[in-house]
Amino acid sequence: MIVEIVATGTELLLGQINNTNTPFLSQKLNELGFDVLYHSTVGDNKTRMTEVLSNALSRSDIIITSGGLGPTQGDITKEVTAQLLNRPLFLHEESVTHMAYLFAKRQLPMPENNLRQAMIPEGAYVIKNERGTAPGVILEHDNKIIIHLPGPPHELEWMYEHAVIPYLKTKFGLQGAIVSRVLHTYGIGESSLEEKIKDLVISQSNPTIALLARPGEIIIRLTAKGSASIEATELIDELERKIRHKIANYIWGLDNDTIEANIGKTLTEKKFTVALAESCTGGLVTSRITDISGSSDYLVGSIVCYTNRIKTDFIDVTPQILAEHGAVSQETACLMATGIRRKFAASIGIGITGIAGPTGATPTKPVGTVFIAIDGPAGIQCQHHTFNGQRTDIKYRISQAALHMLREYTLSL
Amino acid sequence: MIVEIVATGTELLLGQINNTNTPFLSQKLNELGFDVLYHSTVGDNKTRMTEVLSNALSRSDIIITSGGLGPTQGDITKEVTAQLLNRPLFLHEESVTHMAYLFAKRQLPMPENNLRQAMIPEGAYVIKNERGTAPGVILEHDNKIIIHLPGPPHELEWMYEHAVIPYLKTKFGLQGAIVSRVLHTYGIGESSLEEKIKDLVISQSNPTIALLARPGEIIIRLTAKGSASIEATELIDELERKIRHKIANYIWGLDNDTIEANIGKTLTEKKFTVALAESCTGGLVTSRITDISGSSDYLVGSIVCYTNRIKTDFIDVTPQILAEHGAVSQETACLMATGIRRKFAASIGIGITGIAGPTGATPTKPVGTVFIAIDGPAGIQCQHHTFNGQRTDIKYRISQAALHMLREYTLSL
Repeated sequence: MIVEIVATGTELLLGQINNTNTPFLSQKLNELGFDVLYHSTVGDNKTRMTEVLSNALSRSDIIITSGGLGPTQGDITKEVTAQLLNRPLFLHEESVTHMAYLFAKRQLPMPENNLRQAMIPEGAYVIKNERGTAPGVILEHDNKIIIHLPGPPHELEWMYEHAVIPYLKTKFGLQGAIVSRVLHTYGIGESSLEEKIKDLVISQSNPTIALLARPGEIIIRLTAKGSASIEATELIDELERKIRHKIANYIWGLDNDTIEANIGKTLTEKKFTVALAESCTGGLVTSRITDISGSSDYLVGSIVCYTNRIKTDFIDVTPQILAEHGAVSQETACLMATGIRRKFAASIGIGITGIAGPTGATPTKPVGTVFIAIDGPAGIQCQHHTFNGQRTDIKYRISQAALHMLREYTLSL
Repeated sequence: MIVEIVATGTELLLGQINNTNTPFLSQKLNELGFDVLYHSTVGDNKTRMTEVLSNALSRSDIIITSGGLGPTQGDITKEVTAQLLNRPLFLHEESVTHMAYLFAKRQLPMPENNLRQAMIPEGAYVIKNERGTAPGVILEHDNKIIIHLPGPPHELEWMYEHAVIPYLKTKFGLQGAIVSRVLHTYGIGESSLEEKIKDLVISQSNPTIALLARPGEIIIRLTAKGSASIEATELIDELERKIRHKIANYIWGLDNDTIEANIGKTLTEKKFTVALAESCTGGLVTSRITDISGSSDYLVGSIVCYTNRIKTDFIDVTPQILAEHGAVSQETACLMATGIRRKFAASIGIGITGIAGPTGATPTKPVGTVFIAIDGPAGIQCQHHTFNGQRTDIKYRISQAALHMLREYTLSL
């Protein structure tokens, strides 16, 4: 079955918003085993939308549209389909009731033009919208399927998961199950990673393996089909074992794991606390740690020591060390880690000092140079890295390195 | 002239990467006065790419493609066009020289398959790639124009600005100039803003006005056409004056201004320094301040006082105040601002305390509650806000509020 995704909306053609619905649907449909071969975008114009939809009907079996189901005169998707397939629109009473309920709940009067949203092409299957007012629509016509979903991503995604997948599974007798799993890696580049698992990548068919670059990490996505969920899961488990056999040291998490949550879990379990002295990262590492609800259980606090005065007066970095080795040095990073650990009475102290650029480089310390030290129950450790990129990229990469270093340190305790 | 943008690449159809080239080109082409009426995406497949390109040729005057100019067998865009228009490919010596130079510079041997990138359809105008190896291509054919640009956004954007715009201007005698300007607003929602400048929005034609929601702010984009740059600029100036007349208080910056850079400029000029005591934002505000190169001139440092102990021991918040008013209160925020200002000997101190959620709410203090205090030469000020959203959204919105409050405070000095 060939699938085409048609995004509608003049604001997309004007480049005013990014289209996230099309990649979302593409990824999900591919996982289900469908071939998405075309993406199209067209504005809120009857003639051109008709042309794009009839072109899609001529080359694809399933057409999924996003957008144009709202209450305004510019929302014309259902009208165009109704005319194209000669299926008059009628008022769908259940959708009217649902909308009336939503407006009543917010104690607002329902504008008359909202009734447009409840107009449905004859013979269509209506998808109730649990996240908004506009219902979705599934139409079968001459062995083709047209599915209209609303534009707002949280509405579209909900409908896709709760109505479109079950419909497609029943319709096409997709007895089987699709299971996918993401392996998060850190500390290895995309091409080195590919090289190390090359034989597995080349021989892939089921499960499939995809390597994808994400900010600060490479993820490996495994997708397996099986007659039942348990079978697909077993295939994934087996492949994951083979991959781990080759690159276990680089894999730190699965699926929706984040490094921030991962650290939080370990620190909570092991009842350790952490404090940071951040210089070049300016508080970014601490801020990322506090992205996790409950982080006050293990984060004592931090000092952003952006000037040497704060380093000497508040974290006991000695002026001698600064003079002798410089603010960006292993010696300073270690004193920062030890100093903040003692001052804030935390089990683990972290010190970060580097050059985020674009200025501040010296002949021996280029932009991107950083020293990250950790002091704790297992003694003191220091890493030296040099990162590339713009100032904010470098800050982010340093924060990744610090969080991963903290993860390994805590796991070893 | 009708323009169609065709993105190529199977990874787009798999939903593995977001397509940022299409919105970039759309926005820029609209600014030049062209009508972008269709977006298409197709994979690295000869038959389907041929079909999509010939469909585009039948309905559009200018077709701009992105992707498929690389050295691998999957990169077929130029081949498809060459066949479709019957324009054989030949080796473009200048492009070979340019590639050889790039490889030599990195002291790497040039792989043979890189020569594919220098194969150009007969009669094409070649765009030198100053950001990579693959040249771009402009082809005129039967009153239609096909432009092939490389997939990597920084290469595509450079080529668009430096070669495509000049070409289109010459080709279509766009004597006129297009000038656009962005007004950054803060502290007002999209619909209230629209309401306030409604008459200007309704009567718009030249310049045009677009209101766009961006994370934490609404921007207003003005675009004017004129016979010369100076004329278009005058039109924009005039409209900006009218808009400022209605909403001057909400506009804080223009074009590429960022609030972080804006604050940095004022603090540097007025020779003030700042120190922060951050609780619920966990260092995010300080980190954003340090996104600006040179921020060490005005940022002394910060304490992330995530626990009450750090608040009392290091910033002189008294246990009495904490017991009486709670950690999330105006009284605590003010003591934090005053305490950090004195401790770090900064001209301005900022204290931020709130509930980022999802836990921690009390009957009188819901999730999203925050108190932001500033102490400095103009005395002490405190704001109380309640923000909506997920934990990280709330943190970001609080950081926006704090930075804007700092901006206003410093401007008043």
